[in-house]
Amino acid sequence: MNGADSLCETLLANGIDTCFANPGTSEMHFVAALDRQPRMRCILGLFEGVVTGAADGYARMADRPAVTLLHTGPGLANGLANLHNARRARTPVVNVVGDHATYHLRHDAPLTSDIEGLAWPMSHWVGRAESAAEVGPRTAEAIRAALSGAGGIATLILPADAAWTEGAFPVPPVVAPPPRPAPDAALVRQAAELLANGRATTILISGGALRAPQTELLDRIAQKTGARLMAQQANGRMQRGAGRIALDRVPYVIDQALASFAATEQVILIGAKAPVGFFAYPGKPGSMLPPACTVLELASPDHDLAATVEALAGETGLAPAARLAPRQRPDLPQGRLTPDAIALALAALMPEGAIICDESVTSGRDFFRSTYGAAPHDFLQLTGGAIGDGIPMATGAAVACPDRKVIGLQADGSGMYTVQGLWTQARERLDVLTIVFANRRYQILHGELLNVGAGPAGANARSMLDLDNPAIDWVQMAQAMGVGAARAETAESFCDLLRDALSRKGPFLIEAVI
Amino acid sequence: MNGADSLCETLLANGIDTCFANPGTSEMHFVAALDRQPRMRCILGLFEGVVTGAADGYARMADRPAVTLLHTGPGLANGLANLHNARRARTPVVNVVGDHATYHLRHDAPLTSDIEGLAWPMSHWVGRAESAAEVGPRTAEAIRAALSGAGGIATLILPADAAWTEGAFPVPPVVAPPPRPAPDAALVRQAAELLANGRATTILISGGALRAPQTELLDRIAQKTGARLMAQQANGRMQRGAGRIALDRVPYVIDQALASFAATEQVILIGAKAPVGFFAYPGKPGSMLPPACTVLELASPDHDLAATVEALAGETGLAPAARLAPRQRPDLPQGRLTPDAIALALAALMPEGAIICDESVTSGRDFFRSTYGAAPHDFLQLTGGAIGDGIPMATGAAVACPDRKVIGLQADGSGMYTVQGLWTQARERLDVLTIVFANRRYQILHGELLNVGAGPAGANARSMLDLDNPAIDWVQMAQAMGVGAARAETAESFCDLLRDALSRKGPFLIEAVI
Repeated sequence: MNGADSLCETLLANGIDTCFANPGTSEMHFVAALDRQPRMRCILGLFEGVVTGAADGYARMADRPAVTLLHTGPGLANGLANLHNARRARTPVVNVVGDHATYHLRHDAPLTSDIEGLAWPMSHWVGRAESAAEVGPRTAEAIRAALSGAGGIATLILPADAAWTEGAFPVPPVVAPPPRPAPDAALVRQAAELLANGRATTILISGGALRAPQTELLDRIAQKTGARLMAQQANGRMQRGAGRIALDRVPYVIDQALASFAATEQVILIGAKAPVGFFAYPGKPGSMLPPACTVLELASPDHDLAATVEALAGETGLAPAARLAPRQRPDLPQGRLTPDAIALALAALMPEGAIICDESVTSGRDFFRSTYGAAPHDFLQLTGGAIGDGIPMATGAAVACPDRKVIGLQADGSGMYTVQGLWTQARERLDVLTIVFANRRYQILHGELLNVGAGPAGANARSMLDLDNPAIDWVQMAQAMGVGAARAETAESFCDLLRDALSRKGPFLIEAVI
Repeated sequence: MNGADSLCETLLANGIDTCFANPGTSEMHFVAALDRQPRMRCILGLFEGVVTGAADGYARMADRPAVTLLHTGPGLANGLANLHNARRARTPVVNVVGDHATYHLRHDAPLTSDIEGLAWPMSHWVGRAESAAEVGPRTAEAIRAALSGAGGIATLILPADAAWTEGAFPVPPVVAPPPRPAPDAALVRQAAELLANGRATTILISGGALRAPQTELLDRIAQKTGARLMAQQANGRMQRGAGRIALDRVPYVIDQALASFAATEQVILIGAKAPVGFFAYPGKPGSMLPPACTVLELASPDHDLAATVEALAGETGLAPAARLAPRQRPDLPQGRLTPDAIALALAALMPEGAIICDESVTSGRDFFRSTYGAAPHDFLQLTGGAIGDGIPMATGAAVACPDRKVIGLQADGSGMYTVQGLWTQARERLDVLTIVFANRRYQILHGELLNVGAGPAGANARSMLDLDNPAIDWVQMAQAMGVGAARAETAESFCDLLRDALSRKGPFLIEAVI
């Protein structure tokens, strides 16, 4: 067995059977090993940002990692932005990055680069298999790192000769993921005391605390104690909609975030971070909490958050029943096509179990508040602010959940970053509906130019913020890559296209001109 | 004057007046400064790989750097692959990477990352302006680093508060680039002795030695001494065609490269590296030179290569005249559309002064050997093997040379990496003709799978190497971004489209189905 086979068998022995890939010459022996092993599903992305973003979306929905296959330092570099997002979401990912044969590195051939240096800023674990015999054990270490705590980014560098040499460990090592720490009993008591002291308290949650059973328990704690329950601004995955708890998130817009916490005296964090500004703005604070606010981190993202919630419930007691959101079905919108109209149409029509991948930036803010009572769904966000995760994330989520409709809410500016992901959706016949909010500008930056006090945009600024010259034809763009598409310019035509797209399986794109 | 204005003025005072950009919130004050300064031309790329690749192409043709504007760590990460290519080409580039305000970093907001860590693997110089007062001097350092030696990648990190704070150095510092070292006289004599000792000698050149005046002198040296003159495998820029020296390059394919040097006893390097395999292949050597071959590095890329060539000529003497390639105009091809037919059509029809940006990978190998006698042109290559430089490089070259026709020879697989660059060509009405070699596969990898001894592709391997399901419609792709396009399926239709495209200015794309 050579190193490449050992890698493949170790991944499979640990339940990793999906490989998002864009290989090159240094990975050809791993490609050959994958070719010998039909249990591994190999999915090509035409750019590495698609590969890593798909791995992010896949693991958010599958609750287990995919493996990526990347070509040397530049291939990894192309995938780093979406690894940044995955790192912020605490998504488990195992990256395999091919490198030159160990003895070839000294020649500094054109593709040589410092792969470890590139990997570390976006990885929790980085390792290199120096020989075929090391491949199995190092792969096991990478998998263990990816499965540690809430999830991690593990980057394994595989020199070509470690892949092609015989003599690899023939028995694939099976990894027992390290147990997630239970909540600290003293902290649980302290949290319960805060919740009983009569001060205005927010329980701020993220990660695994956002799954439906946990939010129901937390809502009953909140009712019992009078606390406010709230989600972090950006989250890897929220379970929401009718029959679930109607949770608000910390607003993105700084003045709204500050207002939201103005009366808060205490914050209890469960898998969430204390809220800070997404950016600094001149004359405004970095923390969204009042200076005197008490902050208690009850559990970090790496803790066992289900056990934490149960332990807290044991201290505080529970209200008799959770306040589940009632099903609400708004009337279909008419007239002008706006982000709000799109949100209402989705609230009315989207099917049960939909997976919403939200990279709609400014345009999608209406969606969240319109869908508390929509059919129950999963809601996946851009967690690290590195745009270009939307189309790939939807791609990966659809691979993970072939029986559920994936709906991508896609800003046009961000969508162009990794537009190549549409091709993978066509190739794999994935059930993804992409809705492009075509406002033909980086709308958020027009706002931010004002927010930072830099004034309205002149000619040079507009040349960097506007996308209307020429306008991108998203219908042609999608069709060029084999994805059917149509354009909506009114609410009525949007609703018709939406209803039609939801009635069929397979990839489709609606360009919503707003 | 705030830090952002200081940055802008320092760039302009040093002749850097072109900014390829994709900014975000942390760069809004620099955007505002650019808005106040119409002398700076700002060009938007819809992905940072377009931005850095355009800066590479620009500087290769302008012989001075452009500045890039990138948004925090992920924005830089997206641009790293083409910075890798620029680093290998020794293209001067000044990157400005925005970061959070200094006092905001401790909050670890979602976009926070280790920007220095990301920058170093692909940069010759990395610096950070910690305050507005530091911006001018640090910008000058960055420019000096970019102008040092053959050229370097300088990455300046600009925290938002350093940009927006008043009190910057009001007089923009002007940089005197460090002089490039003259050739070592002892090495020049040693090289002349090697050239006189009767052994089989190759003079291997790259960088500035590939400009027309230098190749003419070198050809006269080669004639005089019986040496072979040859160019490195991949080069940032070669001046070639009729009236210039017909230079061969080291072959990419390892067996051809080994054969090419089998009889070589001595190699003299002028701005080139000793030839090595692009990759390692089992059982084949890493160096392309016979083990007993003598290697003399007469001048590194950082030396003054024009002075080096003159000094060598002073020692060896010169043949009376250089062997300039005669103008050759092949008959137009007919019948099946092949890479060779495309090469012949270009050899016959391309105009004087064309700039060829070659990312055609396997398909373009015919071009080089068919165009020794074509109209004189510049030939720009993928220097670092990180695919996705072609469309951006052509974009930047066209910005640098608005009066010359830029022709991109573009493989389809690589073209998809940074396809967004077509939009910038449309927006800026750049005179770029892109020829897509649509073989609908990563053809090179089918060859490499065999080369490394991994055997022919099975189902999983084909799923990662073939692009035919679905085939990409490059005509729709280009039109979606405002670039006119047409498809050629025969040599005749290709010639017609080529003649027509060359007769007009502005961006156009031909999908050549081969």
